[in-house]
Amino acid sequence: MINVHDISMNCQLTEFVGTAVLDSIGLVIGGVDEQLHKQMGIPEKYRALGVFSSRTGAAGQITAADEAVKMTNTEVLIIDLPRDTKGWGGHGNYIVLGAENVEEARHAISLMLELTNKNAGELYISEAGHLEFAYSASAGQALHKAFQAPMHQAFGFLCGSPAAIGLVMADRALKSADVEIVSYMTPSIGTSHSNEVILAVTGDASAVKEAVLTAREIGLQLLISMGSYPEIPGIPFLE
Amino acid sequence: MINVHDISMNCQLTEFVGTAVLDSIGLVIGGVDEQLHKQMGIPEKYRALGVFSSRTGAAGQITAADEAVKMTNTEVLIIDLPRDTKGWGGHGNYIVLGAENVEEARHAISLMLELTNKNAGELYISEAGHLEFAYSASAGQALHKAFQAPMHQAFGFLCGSPAAIGLVMADRALKSADVEIVSYMTPSIGTSHSNEVILAVTGDASAVKEAVLTAREIGLQLLISMGSYPEIPGIPFLE
Amino acid sequence: MINVHDISMNCQLTEFVGTAVLDSIGLVIGGVDEQLHKQMGIPEKYRALGVFSSRTGAAGQITAADEAVKMTNTEVLIIDLPRDTKGWGGHGNYIVLGAENVEEARHAISLMLELTNKNAGELYISEAGHLEFAYSASAGQALHKAFQAPMHQAFGFLCGSPAAIGLVMADRALKSADVEIVSYMTPSIGTSHSNEVILAVTGDASAVKEAVLTAREIGLQLLISMGSYPEIPGIPFLE
Repeated sequence: MINVHDISMNCQLTEFVGTAVLDSIGLVIGGVDEQLHKQMGIPEKYRALGVFSSRTGAAGQITAADEAVKMTNTEVLIIDLPRDTKGWGGHGNYIVLGAENVEEARHAISLMLELTNKNAGELYISEAGHLEFAYSASAGQALHKAFQAPMHQAFGFLCGSPAAIGLVMADRALKSADVEIVSYMTPSIGTSHSNEVILAVTGDASAVKEAVLTAREIGLQLLISMGSYPEIPGIPFLE
Repeated sequence: MINVHDISMNCQLTEFVGTAVLDSIGLVIGGVDEQLHKQMGIPEKYRALGVFSSRTGAAGQITAADEAVKMTNTEVLIIDLPRDTKGWGGHGNYIVLGAENVEEARHAISLMLELTNKNAGELYISEAGHLEFAYSASAGQALHKAFQAPMHQAFGFLCGSPAAIGLVMADRALKSADVEIVSYMTPSIGTSHSNEVILAVTGDASAVKEAVLTAREIGLQLLISMGSYPEIPGIPFLE
Repeated sequence: MINVHDISMNCQLTEFVGTAVLDSIGLVIGGVDEQLHKQMGIPEKYRALGVFSSRTGAAGQITAADEAVKMTNTEVLIIDLPRDTKGWGGHGNYIVLGAENVEEARHAISLMLELTNKNAGELYISEAGHLEFAYSASAGQALHKAFQAPMHQAFGFLCGSPAAIGLVMADRALKSADVEIVSYMTPSIGTSHSNEVILAVTGDASAVKEAVLTAREIGLQLLISMGSYPEIPGIPFLE
């Protein structure tokens, strides 16, 4: 009979790249099986895949993918937002990158793992709910695909759960700076039925940053009013 | 760097109204941002919003909204049922009310917070699953919008998770009294993929009450058969 | 006022059949209420129902239903996959069987409870995620309905969460044996937004078994690489 404790935590499989915070794992497939390739409906030229997912968090990891794709010869094929967060009110993520060779895929996934650890500094998780923030000076493929961010323009993201907090953050963010909505998501619009209101905006870099920082200031006050302080799985870095 | 512990739990934001059990928060927006107003697709005349959400519970809070709207000059604009309950098998809620001024919105949200604490007395949460019950002698806007309840008629609601319990409760409730189905929801019909069967009924007030009380009697026996007693986040009041 | 502790865990309701691991409960309805019967849209001849649901697990219980239906005079009417697993990244289940009399329904549900305890031996749940495996030498109604398995042919099932693990398991399974995909499910395809990649395959019995065992070997290594060992709510039996 199988004994799971005979298996080492130090994974030796060729597909394994690494893990990161928020129950994230990064993997590669060198030459994807022909039948699976067809079923996935991905472009013919991509035989190597980078595969990433986390139980918790979406914007941080999608922003990580955005940077990783810019820095490597890869393309974003799939960005899914499973309803997860391990019992909290939001999403996890499932991201597949295409590459022409497995070294590129591995490089991109390594970058994603590293950036996921960094971006987790703008995730705030209390007993009552959570907040997530992201900013990019120049949106690339992943942010475009996931949130309709205009390419090469500044991108800001804010998310609050329970959803009521997200709506007030969105209102304050839009009032604080001259930015334009690119995505507006609610429990019944665009999410996987998460308990969140999400806003993504574009505009001048300084205005977008200001909108995100305003949302963070307001969101933290509202989240903390619910009676517990958030844990932060990284180091806050937006300022 | 931001230090979340510098932020007081005693929220001073003008949007803050209060909190209630089940990780509920009630907020208002005085004059909603123009761009957000358009994105939300809400009627022109409502510039003030009441915003409410909970991580856990739906019928109790929607019934609270129903009463609050009757007692104030507000209208129900959004009722969403995120898949939540903090790891349990049901829904949270996200409710937006429209008002012509912020005082009316604040009054309605205050009433909702108070009634949410009361209605939580008919929520039963064990290690295995949960039950929720609601009753109104005269359904208003919110119950009509959420569950197709006929306006001004008696309304009864029952919900059981895991879903099998809900179906048997529904069967017994319908056999116990002369009531008519107005909503029937399952993991694949009408819910956000929750593990529940939900039934809402209308009819004569005494019949509707009888159906709900029968469902509660049967549901509790089945839930408790699973090996743990439910916690009740309020004081049971239906009788 | 109702006191829930007055209610016995030893349920005496005629509908009660029993419970099983994974917060599973099995119930029957002898003569389903006329109004409910119509609302459910089930065939006229089935007045007796077997009703089953679990907070956690799908393939094991659907395989249990598959066997139970073969061994009794019942038919599968509903298989739903609520997004559940009590805070983990996958599904629970809600299964309704039709029977012409309640004894048949009770017999089928008893078999399902017993087989659910057995099949739980191929469910692996760690702090980070979970894996589930199933195998049938000859798929019947339930596996056909849920996963499009060809009737009377061998059926293999593998599921990994977070989803990235599932994709690599699927790739390795398909490379390991001459099998054909019958279902491919991801957070946005076929699931209820779970954080899983699921593959179901058919083919020669030995090839299907080989594919499932390969997936288990790979999946366990990847899941354990995330830093915790899985618990198994039964005894592993596939070999």
